This record gives sequence, C-alpha cells and structure tokens, in this order.
Amino acid sequence: MAALGDQSEEQAMAAQPKPQNRPISNIVIVVAMQTEALPIVNRFQLTEDPDTPFPQGVPWVRYQGTYKDLNISLIWPGKDPTLGVDSVGTISSALVTYAAIQALQPDLIINAGTAGGFKAKGASIGDVFIVSDCAFHDRRIPIPVFDLYGVGLRKAFVAPNLVKELNLKVGKLSTGDSLDMTQQDESSIIANDATVKDMELLLMFLTF
Amino acid sequence: MAALGDQSEEQAMAAQPKPQNRPISNIVIVVAMQTEALPIVNRFQLTEDPDTPFPQGVPWVRYQGTYKDLNISLIWPGKDPTLGVDSVGTISSALVTYAAIQALQPDLIINAGTAGGFKAKGASIGDVFIVSDCAFHDRRIPIPVFDLYGVGLRKAFVAPNLVKELNLKVGKLSTGDSLDMTQQDESSIIANDATVKDMELLLMFLTF
Repeated sequence: MAALGDQSEEQAMAAQPKPQNRPISNIVIVVAMQTEALPIVNRFQLTEDPDTPFPQGVPWVRYQGTYKDLNISLIWPGKDPTLGVDSVGTISSALVTYAAIQALQPDLIINAGTAGGFKAKGASIGDVFIVSDCAFHDRRIPIPVFDLYGVGLRKAFVAPNLVKELNLKVGKLSTGDSLDMTQQDESSIIANDATVKDMELLLMFLTF
Repeated sequence: MAALGDQSEEQAMAAQPKPQNRPISNIVIVVAMQTEALPIVNRFQLTEDPDTPFPQGVPWVRYQGTYKDLNISLIWPGKDPTLGVDSVGTISSALVTYAAIQALQPDLIINAGTAGGFKAKGASIGDVFIVSDCAFHDRRIPIPVFDLYGVGLRKAFVAPNLVKELNLKVGKLSTGDSLDMTQQDESSIIANDATVKDMELLLMFLTF
C-alpha cells in the first residue's frame, strides 16, 4: 500500500464536502450494531418506524424522533436474514447510508459506534473520539493511483465547537472488514496514522 | 476464518433465490471497469444513457440496448471523481447494483468481468467460468456465526443449459477488495475452495 504523501492529502482536501450555510435540521445517525443503536435510541426516545422508507424486504431499521428543532433518524442495517447476526462491515453500511441519503435527504450524517483505539497513539478505554480523517487499511491495489483509491483517504467535517464543548479527542480512523488485524493491516493502519479502528466508517462523497 | 462446514452449506442453500417462472426480459449486467464494459457494449451495440436512472451527480454509467426480445442494461460504477480511476471493489459494485435493482427491476443480474484463476484448481488463461458459489476471503470476524457472515457464502443460480451450450467451466469464486494476496487471504481462498478470484462479485439476496 502506498504511503499517504502530499498529493493524496491534497486530493483528500479537494474531496472534502463544502459546509453549507443553511441550518441543519435533518440528521441521520448510522450505526452498525443493535447494541450500539439502543443507547442512542433510548437517550433521544426514538421510536422504530414500522413503515420505513426503504424497499420492502430489506432488514434495514429506522428509528426516528425529534430533539429540540432537529429531526433525528437512526439507521441500522439490521440482522442478516439467514444467519441472524448484525449486518456489520462496510458494504451494509454503504448500502443503508446510500438508501438513507436518497430517502431522507439528511443535512448531516453521523456514523457513530464503538471502535478500537491504539494506546500508543493516545487512546484509552472509554474515550470518545471525533474522527478527523478516515481511510481503508484492507483495500490493497498496488497499481499507481489505484493504490490511493484503495486507501480512500477522506477528511471528515471539522467541528471545532463540538470538540471544545464536549472535550472530545480528535483522531484519524482506519477501517476494514475484519475484526482481527494481520501484519499487512497493521502496516496500513500505521501508514494511515490511525488512532482509532473500526469496521464501517466510510464517508460517502456523493455530490447530490 | 471458520472452515465452511455442513451447516454453512445448508444455510447458503437456504439463502439461494428461487427461480421464477416468468420469462426473463430485463437483464442488468454489472461490470467494474470500463475495459471490461466496452467489449460487451460493442457486441450488443449498447448506447450510453445520457439521462441515467441514477441520482444526479453520481459517476455511475448505464449503457442500454436490446438483443432479440431482451432489454439489456450494462451498469458500470464509473470513475472515482477525485482520482479518475475505475471505482473497483465490492462497495462500489454493491451500491450500483442496489441502485440498478431499484431503478430497473431486473429479472436477471449478471456480474461479468475478468478474474484471476488458480492453475492448481484447473483454471487456464482465457478460460470462461460461470460461478457456482461465491464467498469473501477478506472479511475475518472470528466470533461464532459472525465468522460465517463474514465469509458470506452464496450459491449462484444454476444454469446447466448455459454451461452445456457454451461449454463453460464451472467453479467457485472468492472475492475481496485487494489485488494482491496475503497469507491470510490465501488460507481463506483455499477454505472457500475457490478456482476463481475477483474483487467485486457479490450476489445480493434482496427479497424484493
């Protein structure tokens, strides 16, 4: 995997979405697992939408409610219909996020959940991080430019007020579809300069 | 990664879609790269749809045309807007396939393209394979049941007439988001009993 040099940083910056001036009113929170969803559902007293905006037959779940003047939808890919486990991983998250963008036209998408953290990079159990950058560590395509595509470095929205108000830690995140970590994954995670590791985070830069 | 035992075989069989009796009229062909698309586009004299059924701003491309009494759409995820390379890999393929299912309601989806083959399993350069089974080799989740979810074994439609008519080879395929092959990938590919390896094939078992 290529190291992330200046060129890819610039490209990632260029790909960063431009914040819009209109107020945020529709928020979509995407989570991967039911156990990650329920504390948020309970905190905001969201209710499960029996008539989701998603196609009939998909296992995707939407909880909805309001908080102050915000409409909140929490989206969860649901359980695998055959095996009964949570549909974790990047593909399910990408699909449900895409479908939520189409159906709900959110002003803001928050991908929330538990993640691993690296002590050597300053992470401790119980820390709450906000992600500044995310990249893949398991899409190795050793062909020029395709290597950068595979890593897929993206900047997240900057949210300095949120960081200050909630006293959050800020770190880079590396994502991939495996829970374990091979030697190659570890090298890529180091190249990604990641403090946090998860299995779903992907920022979708759809320009609509 | 768990070996694929009897239980997962049964589960994969249970997840196999039931063929329907209505005639096939709408076919969607999904390919990952432009170089894979163009020979099919030329062979069937398909034309690029300037007004695709996809959301504004996505780079997804649709070519369409007819062959005998069949409506054919060839879908390609297009180029990465920032880097300019083909949007290869499982996430792009899943998204564009989902969007094509929604927009075009196909009777049959064909995922076509070039792939690697293992000589030790009987594959040679230039062979044309039809895939009997597919599974992931880079989604390692070593927790009971989640391990099977990660592997994601699926049976493809059986097409004995097609195999006979075109004298195709039949084999199992293993997919993943990397072009190279780590030791862990190789072990998983062997566990998947794969003859063919690619970077996109995923059969979507949406029940709508």
